[in-house]
Amino acid sequence: MKTDFKNITIIGIGLMGSSFALALKAKGFRGRITGIGRNRKNLVKAKRLGIIDDYTTEYTDGIKNADLILLAVPVGRFETIVKNIRKEIKKGAIVTDVGSVKAQIVKKIGPLMPEGVHFVGGHPIAGKECSGIKCASAGLYRNARCVITPGRNTNNTALKKVISLWKTVGADTVLMTPEEHDIVFGAVSHLPHVIAYALVNGITKVEDSILNNGGRGLRDMTRIALSPPELWRDICAHNRKNILRSLKKFSSSVTRVTRLIEKSDWPGLEKEFRKAREARQGLE
Amino acid sequence: MKTDFKNITIIGIGLMGSSFALALKAKGFRGRITGIGRNRKNLVKAKRLGIIDDYTTEYTDGIKNADLILLAVPVGRFETIVKNIRKEIKKGAIVTDVGSVKAQIVKKIGPLMPEGVHFVGGHPIAGKECSGIKCASAGLYRNARCVITPGRNTNNTALKKVISLWKTVGADTVLMTPEEHDIVFGAVSHLPHVIAYALVNGITKVEDSILNNGGRGLRDMTRIALSPPELWRDICAHNRKNILRSLKKFSSSVTRVTRLIEKSDWPGLEKEFRKAREARQGLE
Repeated sequence: MKTDFKNITIIGIGLMGSSFALALKAKGFRGRITGIGRNRKNLVKAKRLGIIDDYTTEYTDGIKNADLILLAVPVGRFETIVKNIRKEIKKGAIVTDVGSVKAQIVKKIGPLMPEGVHFVGGHPIAGKECSGIKCASAGLYRNARCVITPGRNTNNTALKKVISLWKTVGADTVLMTPEEHDIVFGAVSHLPHVIAYALVNGITKVEDSILNNGGRGLRDMTRIALSPPELWRDICAHNRKNILRSLKKFSSSVTRVTRLIEKSDWPGLEKEFRKAREARQGLE
Repeated sequence: MKTDFKNITIIGIGLMGSSFALALKAKGFRGRITGIGRNRKNLVKAKRLGIIDDYTTEYTDGIKNADLILLAVPVGRFETIVKNIRKEIKKGAIVTDVGSVKAQIVKKIGPLMPEGVHFVGGHPIAGKECSGIKCASAGLYRNARCVITPGRNTNNTALKKVISLWKTVGADTVLMTPEEHDIVFGAVSHLPHVIAYALVNGITKVEDSILNNGGRGLRDMTRIALSPPELWRDICAHNRKNILRSLKKFSSSVTRVTRLIEKSDWPGLEKEFRKAREARQGLE
């Protein structure tokens, strides 16, 4: 495999970061992959498993030879990390990420890049509720969409290299502006996560230990409530406006069905359900 | 296989009814299974596939020799059907059902039984979004829970026979009162279905064709929005009070997270997410 990068440093050796490393290795990547994190035990394990070639808990040490730096920690930590490492980033290097929010990230991180270093935002639509290297897989990004979000100031060469890198690990790349990305994923991803958490809490409010009675439908609907709370807290903080807007539309849909049930308007309710079913049928 | 029944008539040869027939046959049931429905083409197909031994679109014809009658149509049709067939039900026969609501059914259907005929309510927690005999399987009820809901007037011998029948097809039976059943399933099943439909409609309100951008999380969360609208309309109509009560608890959870996001109370939001995640972890 040929890539534009010789040394790749991944900051955050969790599910996303280690799956990225595994995918590169599975494709025959011959460069060096360095893992950076705060948990040395996790890094040692990742090296022992052959996920990374090298590791350090010293961020500036770990990035100084990197041709590509991938940010794979919760988005709430990006700014602090980049401020900490920016002066040591090699000229010509590219910084990219796997964060689920984009507008604020591109706006905050882009301008922190030193001369000759380029930031390109990315968001692979892949993941599991299970987190950490124990769940990592070389196939996580295979056939997954990866949204790349160039802003007005994004360097075109860097953009092309990041697109090509994601294609290497099997992803289908899609371009969106950071703002467009956040509207879309505020609705189709962030909203459902918030609702899954709220649904579990709503059900346990009816009766404390009632959840166990649920079948496959309930399991499917609440599976994403197993996702890491700190990650989704950060995503809500970084896409607050769009998530609030989506929550408003959703709440008005809930109010609508509630009213129909209150009024015993069964034909109206069926119509509402049918509309949803038809829209959902387009999805698979 | 030994059962208490020689002739079994299933009213409604859809997913639930035909899977029940297939399960009985897979267990070596030697009696006769008659299918009743309104769609002759479907019945012909079911017979050709060996799901049923016999069929008719004449309800009274189809039930007069039955030792057991299983109602496997949407709950909204139970009352009309039972009123239509009741005088022809054989003395000693048992009538049971697979309906997702119980209190109103037990209250309405129980008293319609003629002398010597007993109704026992049942609700197997099994199903698919895919409906009809094309999705039927002999294993649908294997290891599924089946809630049996005796009321104050339920005949004890009939109850035992119905329990034993569900055990025969592989289900784990659980006893609840009809009222208890409706509170529990109003929360863990009916509410999630209503919310799945509302979620799809809420998302398409943000942008019309946005749904396609979703990943596995969205697919999982909205899968049950593929369920038959007329079935869920009937369930809402028959468990209106409990569903409204669950919707109220859920809406207050949604309001809570919305407020936390509005106030940018990120520690508070994380706590809310964490509570949900812990409750959900108990589920699998």
